[in-house]
Amino acid sequence: MTAEHRPSEPVVRPERLVSAPHDEGVDAATAAARRLIDALLRAGDHTDTDMADVAKQIDALADQLTERAPGLEERLVTMWQGTGVTRHDPVTGPENALAPPLELTGQEDGSIQGTVTLGLPYQGPPRCAHGGVSALLLDHTLGVANHWAGLSGMTAELTLRYLRPTPLFEPLTVTGRQISVDGKKIRTVGSITAGGRACVTAEGLFIAKQLPRPS
Amino acid sequence: MTAEHRPSEPVVRPERLVSAPHDEGVDAATAAARRLIDALLRAGDHTDTDMADVAKQIDALADQLTERAPGLEERLVTMWQGTGVTRHDPVTGPENALAPPLELTGQEDGSIQGTVTLGLPYQGPPRCAHGGVSALLLDHTLGVANHWAGLSGMTAELTLRYLRPTPLFEPLTVTGRQISVDGKKIRTVGSITAGGRACVTAEGLFIAKQLPRPS
Repeated sequence: MTAEHRPSEPVVRPERLVSAPHDEGVDAATAAARRLIDALLRAGDHTDTDMADVAKQIDALADQLTERAPGLEERLVTMWQGTGVTRHDPVTGPENALAPPLELTGQEDGSIQGTVTLGLPYQGPPRCAHGGVSALLLDHTLGVANHWAGLSGMTAELTLRYLRPTPLFEPLTVTGRQISVDGKKIRTVGSITAGGRACVTAEGLFIAKQLPRPS
Repeated sequence: MTAEHRPSEPVVRPERLVSAPHDEGVDAATAAARRLIDALLRAGDHTDTDMADVAKQIDALADQLTERAPGLEERLVTMWQGTGVTRHDPVTGPENALAPPLELTGQEDGSIQGTVTLGLPYQGPPRCAHGGVSALLLDHTLGVANHWAGLSGMTAELTLRYLRPTPLFEPLTVTGRQISVDGKKIRTVGSITAGGRACVTAEGLFIAKQLPRPS
């Protein structure tokens, strides 16, 4: 940080913008749960596995965790402690098995960028990402781009343009960049590309406000 | 069906538009996996559970299923057999643990409607649904509304307007309706409401084409 650098300005070097996953604790169990979601979909009812027994084992694990978990209100408080990126969101969160997860990095030019390879659970058309999954990735990425640019808010309007199908099973590049701030109105754009070709673009209008954090 | 009824017209009575979940087989294991995803998020690293052991048990189940599962190409073929709604999609699919799942029903007036209660894995702002999750639900619902109206296609453009936060933990009503067809261009609208108040509205432009099914 130079003497001229003000705290509200983005730090001008690439920086990881998602919570680093740990190889232990709940992050490891969540990574395993992602493998299980994929495996269930691959198996379907097309194996000789005793699925009633599989269901029983998964239910037992869920019961064990639920019994020991803090109450919902208490957990919401710990989830929302601290500043910056979250560990629980459904796009990047290392504690959320819905998240592919997408890894995002703040760039020196003020934009952010990430990569992700989507598997079978994210399928819409055959062999392609669900259009709504692309929307989910982009809404989140635009939000993080606002955070990286120094002023974030809540989505007011989001427009997605689907240029070509987004493939599963290969690396996708997801980008976001804040383009303007006018009072409380923030405009942000982003895209998903595969092999250098744009598949989906997004334009978002965000309003600079936040809901209160649980306390 | 009256003598005047043509097969391409929607049947004019409410009809379940998502695959009925079974209480056995992979559907039961998938329902258990949804409970596990939620339980992991509720527990976080805030319990005395041996998470390394939990991870090991989940990994063992994933390994067991993956080893017995058909190959990916073979599985893609079975996934896409038949007509109508899918069992594997990330919104309504009884075989996909990412799906909340949303249950959709075709209405006599040509629209479709469904209900869903979203839990912690779908959180964006505190206690509210992630804006991208609302986009995912609506993109899918608009697509199913097109199917119900008799002509479906792929999303070309989707615009979402966020009117107020969408709450977690209470029943949401998701609706969709095809409003026009002009050549290959299909226009469709939808909304998510909570307690009778609109939270998110969507307008979609779809193009009447389909990617080839794996065979």
